[in-house]
Amino acid sequence: MINKKRFIAVIGGGQPSSQEVKMAEEVGRQLARQGVILVCGGLGGVMEAACKGASSEGGMTVGILPGDSRQAANSYVQMPIVTGIGYARNVAVVKSAQAVIAIGGSYGTLSEIAHALQSGIPVIGLNTWSLTRNGQQDNSIIPAQNPAEAVNKALNLAKHQ
Amino acid sequence: MINKKRFIAVIGGGQPSSQEVKMAEEVGRQLARQGVILVCGGLGGVMEAACKGASSEGGMTVGILPGDSRQAANSYVQMPIVTGIGYARNVAVVKSAQAVIAIGGSYGTLSEIAHALQSGIPVIGLNTWSLTRNGQQDNSIIPAQNPAEAVNKALNLAKHQ
Amino acid sequence: MINKKRFIAVIGGGQPSSQEVKMAEEVGRQLARQGVILVCGGLGGVMEAACKGASSEGGMTVGILPGDSRQAANSYVQMPIVTGIGYARNVAVVKSAQAVIAIGGSYGTLSEIAHALQSGIPVIGLNTWSLTRNGQQDNSIIPAQNPAEAVNKALNLAKHQ
Amino acid sequence: MINKKRFIAVIGGGQPSSQEVKMAEEVGRQLARQGVILVCGGLGGVMEAACKGASSEGGMTVGILPGDSRQAANSYVQMPIVTGIGYARNVAVVKSAQAVIAIGGSYGTLSEIAHALQSGIPVIGLNTWSLTRNGQQDNSIIPAQNPAEAVNKALNLAKHQ
Repeated sequence: MINKKRFIAVIGGGQPSSQEVKMAEEVGRQLARQGVILVCGGLGGVMEAACKGASSEGGMTVGILPGDSRQAANSYVQMPIVTGIGYARNVAVVKSAQAVIAIGGSYGTLSEIAHALQSGIPVIGLNTWSLTRNGQQDNSIIPAQNPAEAVNKALNLAKHQ
Repeated sequence: MINKKRFIAVIGGGQPSSQEVKMAEEVGRQLARQGVILVCGGLGGVMEAACKGASSEGGMTVGILPGDSRQAANSYVQMPIVTGIGYARNVAVVKSAQAVIAIGGSYGTLSEIAHALQSGIPVIGLNTWSLTRNGQQDNSIIPAQNPAEAVNKALNLAKHQ
Repeated sequence: MINKKRFIAVIGGGQPSSQEVKMAEEVGRQLARQGVILVCGGLGGVMEAACKGASSEGGMTVGILPGDSRQAANSYVQMPIVTGIGYARNVAVVKSAQAVIAIGGSYGTLSEIAHALQSGIPVIGLNTWSLTRNGQQDNSIIPAQNPAEAVNKALNLAKHQ
Repeated sequence: MINKKRFIAVIGGGQPSSQEVKMAEEVGRQLARQGVILVCGGLGGVMEAACKGASSEGGMTVGILPGDSRQAANSYVQMPIVTGIGYARNVAVVKSAQAVIAIGGSYGTLSEIAHALQSGIPVIGLNTWSLTRNGQQDNSIIPAQNPAEAVNKALNLAKHQ
């Protein structure tokens, strides 16, 4: 069944550094080579770079958009989902995946990390947020040193979802 | 660009008549043969029958689910989108499409018809609701006599979206 | 307990006729006199007229807004709820009430009627939609001839919710 | 206009420590004495304690619920808003407020903090999350040492919203 395929979300900011763009493209390429379907928020920055990387390797990309029109999707989104629910769509981005890779990102990305952790969906981080909870470090975001490590960890953890 | 592909939503009830099941399967088959991506709410009844028909012709199916798990998707959904927002996902089902085909259905289907019309997305009806607004007939739901006519009308109207 | 208070939603269009405005104001006044909390979508037209009527009798008004700012609320909304989820907020408008009074209205109102009926919440109609389902009249929308009758019917039905 | 009233959200976990319960009650009491309307997610733990405190001082409490029934509201919620959208309601909790006070909390609370910061709504923290973004401390969550300080800071910041 194709719906047994793994879906991995790539989340990150709309204003990434050039290093983050490169990481996102590489993550996208590696996910595509593994036959994974890439889910994201459908807009620019990290989302666009990841979709571009995945597309370059023939991978499938899903963009879950906040607004009312699929015209807002970046040009590498093959499956634009138009929610019309604004940032509440962040919940759907992570819930549609069996693991999440966070690259950089601002508060929108942080909300997606939080929604994923709340739902028990593993989060792998590249240059992203780290968390301290009432003075104690929270290690729920699994760090990765590079795109290859992030993809490997995400694939391993997604198996158990 | 694959995201210039047409997306058509098939909506209808979870408890269809056997005639509605046949119509939904035929609509799914014909959409798939036209290279259209089928969007639906991902659950049983009309949604499942349409996905089954589309799958039998190699078509792509997207199921935008109300709950928290992709396990709820019918087995012909290839792209399960897990929203976690309950029936508010009805908005996303229709907004993700350039035209909607309604087959039978109860109040959930009626809410999708209404959200589509509110967003200016054309709705084609097979054995479904008809509307009277403060005593005057509303002809916004475009009737079709059979699946072939419904698909033809949907494709023609989707071009203008 | 104040949260045992009855909440009744008043739904209707942003562009009402002058007759609908008068009916909405009168419905608002009568709900307020009964100690009912008025819930609506928070914007103009029928929503504003109902809130104005309720406020003139010292009633409480809740406006569940689609956008990102409470500035969009009409000036008679005392409790602006800012959802940021667009028309998906229609679901929350009706689910927050034990009965719904629909006055006129277009497709947005129709979507709220449908979501209410789907959730088993009674709908009373004044000059609003009527429904035919696959050729058979659907009598779920309970007609009222005037605001007093609408409020009476809504209060009676709300008791059983 | 009553809708110029200040709304302040109190967010926090469903499983608070006894210290957090005391803080939440005190925050609720102080907000009520200032005439502020308390907004929360409507459930137990910190939400219930804050509503209890506010109610004891005659304050108004709004609970924006994730599920389909107002029966899930804690017994101190005076205005239960029933969204039916699950954790996507976290967005509405913070957007309905001009400032947010976070007390302890887990990933749900973290998602609310993130949505607030994304929307430019100030967040004051009591024993809650602290954030590091790609190795650099993020000071967006304004710390408070006790409930009185949290309420003072929230009121001051809410004025500018």
